[in-house]
Amino acid sequence: MTPKVALIMGSDSDLPALRPCIQALKKFGIEVEARVLSAHRTPDAAAVFAKNAKERGFSVIIGAAGKAAHLPGVLAAFTTLPVIGIPIKSSTMDGLDSLLSIVQMPKGIPVATVAIDGGENAAILAAQMIALSNPAVAQKLEEHKLHMLREVGEKDARLQEELKNI
Amino acid sequence: MTPKVALIMGSDSDLPALRPCIQALKKFGIEVEARVLSAHRTPDAAAVFAKNAKERGFSVIIGAAGKAAHLPGVLAAFTTLPVIGIPIKSSTMDGLDSLLSIVQMPKGIPVATVAIDGGENAAILAAQMIALSNPAVAQKLEEHKLHMLREVGEKDARLQEELKNI
Amino acid sequence: MTPKVALIMGSDSDLPALRPCIQALKKFGIEVEARVLSAHRTPDAAAVFAKNAKERGFSVIIGAAGKAAHLPGVLAAFTTLPVIGIPIKSSTMDGLDSLLSIVQMPKGIPVATVAIDGGENAAILAAQMIALSNPAVAQKLEEHKLHMLREVGEKDARLQEELKNI
Amino acid sequence: MTPKVALIMGSDSDLPALRPCIQALKKFGIEVEARVLSAHRTPDAAAVFAKNAKERGFSVIIGAAGKAAHLPGVLAAFTTLPVIGIPIKSSTMDGLDSLLSIVQMPKGIPVATVAIDGGENAAILAAQMIALSNPAVAQKLEEHKLHMLREVGEKDARLQEELKNI
Amino acid sequence: MTPKVALIMGSDSDLPALRPCIQALKKFGIEVEARVLSAHRTPDAAAVFAKNAKERGFSVIIGAAGKAAHLPGVLAAFTTLPVIGIPIKSSTMDGLDSLLSIVQMPKGIPVATVAIDGGENAAILAAQMIALSNPAVAQKLEEHKLHMLREVGEKDARLQEELKNI
Amino acid sequence: MTPKVALIMGSDSDLPALRPCIQALKKFGIEVEARVLSAHRTPDAAAVFAKNAKERGFSVIIGAAGKAAHLPGVLAAFTTLPVIGIPIKSSTMDGLDSLLSIVQMPKGIPVATVAIDGGENAAILAAQMIALSNPAVAQKLEEHKLHMLREVGEKDARLQEELKNI
Amino acid sequence: MTPKVALIMGSDSDLPALRPCIQALKKFGIEVEARVLSAHRTPDAAAVFAKNAKERGFSVIIGAAGKAAHLPGVLAAFTTLPVIGIPIKSSTMDGLDSLLSIVQMPKGIPVATVAIDGGENAAILAAQMIALSNPAVAQKLEEHKLHMLREVGEKDARLQEELKNI
Amino acid sequence: MTPKVALIMGSDSDLPALRPCIQALKKFGIEVEARVLSAHRTPDAAAVFAKNAKERGFSVIIGAAGKAAHLPGVLAAFTTLPVIGIPIKSSTMDGLDSLLSIVQMPKGIPVATVAIDGGENAAILAAQMIALSNPAVAQKLEEHKLHMLREVGEKDARLQEELKNI
Repeated sequence: MTPKVALIMGSDSDLPALRPCIQALKKFGIEVEARVLSAHRTPDAAAVFAKNAKERGFSVIIGAAGKAAHLPGVLAAFTTLPVIGIPIKSSTMDGLDSLLSIVQMPKGIPVATVAIDGGENAAILAAQMIALSNPAVAQKLEEHKLHMLREVGEKDARLQEELKNI
Repeated sequence: MTPKVALIMGSDSDLPALRPCIQALKKFGIEVEARVLSAHRTPDAAAVFAKNAKERGFSVIIGAAGKAAHLPGVLAAFTTLPVIGIPIKSSTMDGLDSLLSIVQMPKGIPVATVAIDGGENAAILAAQMIALSNPAVAQKLEEHKLHMLREVGEKDARLQEELKNI
Repeated sequence: MTPKVALIMGSDSDLPALRPCIQALKKFGIEVEARVLSAHRTPDAAAVFAKNAKERGFSVIIGAAGKAAHLPGVLAAFTTLPVIGIPIKSSTMDGLDSLLSIVQMPKGIPVATVAIDGGENAAILAAQMIALSNPAVAQKLEEHKLHMLREVGEKDARLQEELKNI
Repeated sequence: MTPKVALIMGSDSDLPALRPCIQALKKFGIEVEARVLSAHRTPDAAAVFAKNAKERGFSVIIGAAGKAAHLPGVLAAFTTLPVIGIPIKSSTMDGLDSLLSIVQMPKGIPVATVAIDGGENAAILAAQMIALSNPAVAQKLEEHKLHMLREVGEKDARLQEELKNI
Repeated sequence: MTPKVALIMGSDSDLPALRPCIQALKKFGIEVEARVLSAHRTPDAAAVFAKNAKERGFSVIIGAAGKAAHLPGVLAAFTTLPVIGIPIKSSTMDGLDSLLSIVQMPKGIPVATVAIDGGENAAILAAQMIALSNPAVAQKLEEHKLHMLREVGEKDARLQEELKNI
Repeated sequence: MTPKVALIMGSDSDLPALRPCIQALKKFGIEVEARVLSAHRTPDAAAVFAKNAKERGFSVIIGAAGKAAHLPGVLAAFTTLPVIGIPIKSSTMDGLDSLLSIVQMPKGIPVATVAIDGGENAAILAAQMIALSNPAVAQKLEEHKLHMLREVGEKDARLQEELKNI
Repeated sequence: MTPKVALIMGSDSDLPALRPCIQALKKFGIEVEARVLSAHRTPDAAAVFAKNAKERGFSVIIGAAGKAAHLPGVLAAFTTLPVIGIPIKSSTMDGLDSLLSIVQMPKGIPVATVAIDGGENAAILAAQMIALSNPAVAQKLEEHKLHMLREVGEKDARLQEELKNI
Repeated sequence: MTPKVALIMGSDSDLPALRPCIQALKKFGIEVEARVLSAHRTPDAAAVFAKNAKERGFSVIIGAAGKAAHLPGVLAAFTTLPVIGIPIKSSTMDGLDSLLSIVQMPKGIPVATVAIDGGENAAILAAQMIALSNPAVAQKLEEHKLHMLREVGEKDARLQEELKNI
């Protein structure tokens, strides 16, 4: 059965920042259901989504939000599934408000926080969780790690070319 | 009819910090219902409380929380009553995490934020809101303002005494 | 009687940032008197305004300021009306200076602080205070909450369209 | 088969802060191997541990470190297992250095970061990952969530008692 | 004529932190009038004091305040005398709120800000201003500078003794 | 005799940010000698300048610098004249590094710090110091204060016009 | 024998920021080997490089990295050569995350940290270390110091020209 | 010839924090001259010391200072020897002011900055610089690295004992 991840964002204007997250999930062979839900404007819908997520077959919920970023923590309140939080940088405070609002969760309800605007890493982390019981995804993660290794090698080669002009 | 304010805190261990808030509310002639409710551990109870608060006759909800302090914002999501947020300083980050998690609310759902550990000011602010349509509370606020003025005068007199020993 | 709110700003150059505040107040059926007054350059005028605000029929004063943003606190010093503070982001410190200068008010004189550049939320908060004794404004707030809920639904639908192209 | 989690810390002096993590893991029926390994003083041993962790049957690695806290990121570099990072507060910078050093991982290598000194939440998060394919752990997480809910109820009752003395 | 400096503080509880300021001013032969006045609780008294300060023969006003520290800026609004601000560290935010509230004054109304809890430096700065037209104070400042130089020499000698025990 | 102020900057590239400082000093009838001197690249020249400043007839030294902004403190080390520091915002840290490097001077050697990029306020502060013994400059400061007051009035009038279009 | 310095960066996209570093090293007569290596994506290659650096004749290793910048610390873990760290400013947190991740190294493994984006200073620092036993490089450093001194003089002269237009 | 390092501190009260630095230098077979000198109170003495340091046979200068910590940068201004800076945490700002004042040096004059209160690491870094041309010190550094490795092993063993009681 194809593993499923939910990606919840506060507004469709966050999509550009989250596109790499969706693309990475697909590359790992993970189905993604992306939704606009708000912890503050549609709190009931967010609660219902989180409560039903396990039964609906989701393995992981990713929540992305900016400013006083309550969404990931609020989703985590209603489920025992692992919840990953992506702090989104907004127009003030350089992302620090989003980061602290997501990572500093009180005892009992963790949110697995990644870097500010770290959409792709959220996807990899979700894949790592799923890979614990899914050899196909585990295999894809190994390949991705090798791919990154090769990529650095290529960048190193390219650098040697560029250095000739300094 | 006696005006009513709800004071919601995440743990009864916050009570010492909030005692001045309760005492000030009582001094202004405001009835206070204090509750331990958690945005993350009892999210349904918090939602139900906020949804019913207006009908139950509350004028204002005060939420106090530390770290990733979602409580005031989550309460505000479920009501159109004004919600006041008190950021509580915890063992790390000197209260900055609590402050940003409460004050940086996204468009549409404000939380009226007071200073870190500012319990008494939350009470005064609630009284100011109630005083808009309650002359008795308004009168008590005027008296409190005069009282503070006199208090500064007394401190000034005391300072003159202390200065003699420098 | 139409409820009235005062919006005090330090310079007319703040107007673009505060336009959403004025528009939201009008949408809620609240009359708004906007003024340029400075805590530092016209301190007497600011004091006089705040002292007379209650008698002139204002329910709430909103003060917007940047950097060492004393305006909301100084207005609060001269009135028992609730004062809402909007920290304005300036060219340095990313709004942190404005936020701390407004929210960290000492005991006795609260300022109800909203997010940095949070003009619209200041308007909603003012409306929530007024709605405590004004059913028409209360009704408009309920409608606004429903409108936001529907808006999120529309964004969610739009997202589903956009996802087809990823 | 009993699920296994590795808990790597930079010094045995971190143990007091991590005791709740170990206790929570055991409560969830998870075997824990705790080790002192340093990203900087024993980098080879840390690398070897991470490289072999999957084959040795670990599901999750938890890394706890303070200051320039490289340990979780360095462990993540050598494995595709999910790595959880616990920022430890040290004598300066109030934990901000530890937090940023752990959470701000570059693209490709995520670390699932929890709150500063958030040992217990790291255990819960590890349990949530394991629970994806382990019904016994999943069951224990549900019970823990109910337990927390009841605990808040008890605190609320206790608060009502305490309020009588204000 | 003996030069005069006013030292305004928000509370007599600030006195311990300001004692070095008073003692230093006296050592420089400057008369000091210390007062408890509050920008928020006694705004009229503060305004009157600042308005009359020049006529009453003060050369400099020093304002000391913590948290949202408006006092020095508010005094500066009502006088063209130089105003020195001392940010006082309070129980949260490690003095950063006080510092930014005092130093980040908008265009037109400067406050000469010294270090957090920098009472003695405020006294020296006031003396430097007065010394521009007061040779006696200027002479005392030169002596103080020499005294500090000798003091460092003595500390260096003491260090050489202490080093023998390492 | 025309009063003289020295304005020392680390690079001529700082001139645009300091132009308002020079213009304001001239407007107050103060002669200004502007120099490029560096605490780190020309430390001897900086020391010599500061040592001779008093004898050369300067009343105040203004030092402007960015990043690890040592210039104002280093100038203050070599003189008993009042030294004003202007923290210049550079390409990183939003001016916080410059501000702390200038304002947090240790006991004994104050620097009168103004806001980040606060060139004009540095000029006003220098004028206020000089005005203590110079009635002509004092008179110009009073006029400037009135001018600012009128300016706010004009902005208020302009705002009323602009409001008609909202 | 020509002294050799290694400059390790996480991506070839860092090259523009590091060009001044390479150019300065060459100007001091130091050979530079620049490489793209990642503490997280190619940890083994980074370890091997650092382990062999001394034997391969390098005197100093410079590591440049952004965000959770582990590269310099990880290189330092595998060598007793001095390691210089350059914090690179990335798209969030204004370089603070990079700085703290590099400078706050735990006891035992230092990284000689320079300013955020301080590539040229890293080169000068490397040259200063090499100059301890290399008179030719020492001579070039003296010349560079004189050159900077003259440069400030030229800027001062240029400023005098520019001042005529104010 | 025994290598020599100078350790300059602003006050003999810094000695406790710097004792580990002195002890480590001695352990590496490096002679240390420790002095109390101040960038602000004895600027001439500090300049003279730095100017003569090379000729007097010092290889490295270590400067330790708190708050607006100019000492290391000021020493670096007068020498081409490598200068190491130790930011000392003072009573406010948790060491951030000291760190930024030392590390953010402008182009041309680097200071090799170590962690806040990082006295021992400053000693190791100085030894690493000296070891470039001193095989005896190089040998001691290798031994120290092995010693740290063994120490972690012992801590790991101790942890296994302690774990039996959890």
